[in-house]
Amino acid sequence: MTPSTDSPPRIYTAALAIIGNEILSGRTQDANLNHLAKTLNGWGVEMREARVVPDIESEIVAAINALRARYDYVFTTGGIGPTHDDITADSIAKAFGLPLVEHPAAIALLEHYYPPGELTVVRRRMARVPEGADLIENPISKAPGFKIENVFVLAGVPSIMRAQLQGARAFIAGGRSVLSRTVSVLVGESKIAELLETAQGQFPDVDMGSYPFFKRNALGTALVLRGREEARLEAAYDVLVGALSAAGIEGHPGELPD
Amino acid sequence: MTPSTDSPPRIYTAALAIIGNEILSGRTQDANLNHLAKTLNGWGVEMREARVVPDIESEIVAAINALRARYDYVFTTGGIGPTHDDITADSIAKAFGLPLVEHPAAIALLEHYYPPGELTVVRRRMARVPEGADLIENPISKAPGFKIENVFVLAGVPSIMRAQLQGARAFIAGGRSVLSRTVSVLVGESKIAELLETAQGQFPDVDMGSYPFFKRNALGTALVLRGREEARLEAAYDVLVGALSAAGIEGHPGELPD
Repeated sequence: MTPSTDSPPRIYTAALAIIGNEILSGRTQDANLNHLAKTLNGWGVEMREARVVPDIESEIVAAINALRARYDYVFTTGGIGPTHDDITADSIAKAFGLPLVEHPAAIALLEHYYPPGELTVVRRRMARVPEGADLIENPISKAPGFKIENVFVLAGVPSIMRAQLQGARAFIAGGRSVLSRTVSVLVGESKIAELLETAQGQFPDVDMGSYPFFKRNALGTALVLRGREEARLEAAYDVLVGALSAAGIEGHPGELPD
Repeated sequence: MTPSTDSPPRIYTAALAIIGNEILSGRTQDANLNHLAKTLNGWGVEMREARVVPDIESEIVAAINALRARYDYVFTTGGIGPTHDDITADSIAKAFGLPLVEHPAAIALLEHYYPPGELTVVRRRMARVPEGADLIENPISKAPGFKIENVFVLAGVPSIMRAQLQGARAFIAGGRSVLSRTVSVLVGESKIAELLETAQGQFPDVDMGSYPFFKRNALGTALVLRGREEARLEAAYDVLVGALSAAGIEGHPGELPD
């Protein structure tokens, strides 16, 4: 157990740029942020911000440059296919001030994937990366992503994105995961607000959130505690459950099923 | 029919700030962006950007001030409950440099909602708005949102957010909705990339997007055309379907069912 007087371990942070008009138009429901947030937390990296940006080069460049200066890792999803609206590689190259080049290993992958003679000009578009980028292997299908400095460029299709994210694992250093404990109560937020704030005051290193829900025709609240030190998290949980009990409110461990 | 030589009608734009650690941690899957994007488009307002920001005042202030300067309307979801982690009202007031005050009509609503004597200090928190804000009525439950200048502050719980959005309708002026037509093909993107780009070149006022999918165990691509002028959209659709046919590719109208 690390005593709390030690300097705290390094915290690794990430942001996501979701690139795609189809998310902003409502055609498509994004599923990548949720998966990435959970996966990265398991790797000891904390998602701190996400942006959804349209398929406009200047918008992508501005978002990437804002995010890569601020977070340890930046992920992008979407816009790496072969069609004219796939402008992510171009935009990332521009953000870094680098030329866009064909990656020899990506060309080799494509040559292996398509029948002889079918690696068309259009398909070669998918091998373009900013000069100096590393390919991110995709252990499931063959379509690679790429990494340039701290920016990881992944596909928008969730199944491909998830495979590429596994390929990106090797490049990512993380710290300690954020652990969480949840207690659910069948009263509204205003009934627990004061005791929750008191508990939060006692445990400034444990983030306490309160999330109202309607389940089983009842109003309730999930109290979610998040922190990196297990002993502190457990102590905070016990204090909170004790305070609920003292107030005559029954706490149910975990999230209530729907 | 408006001739295309007329000056184009005004385009109304919007952005969304999703406020909440629970989205960034992966605990909760956001559903509000998708609903808001579709609803606003029906009202003639185009969603241009979204950001997911943590429950940190300085982050919320920075996001709101960046977005409200740039778009006609800014929406926020989340952080307007009664608990200590609900800091949206405080942060919006700070972004505008305004004091946070109790809105008399919000207090009246809460007084009516709770039994006599039960409008506690904690519950009064939900009536706090930046000075000069208008309440956004909620025709379903009683919890209001509020509006200050071009910023609309809504709940995070989807059912409440949707009700408040209906209440916000009266404040929103819109232009023409973006119309869309989709044709699906059972070939990969690279087979249609060239003809799609050619069609896009002929119709710069129609936005053409290409979205690969895996359905019924087959790889396919949805080609989505979006534009404000119905005649141009139909013409572009006909040209694209004709080009597909000439290339020996069968086009299925609309999205393919899963």
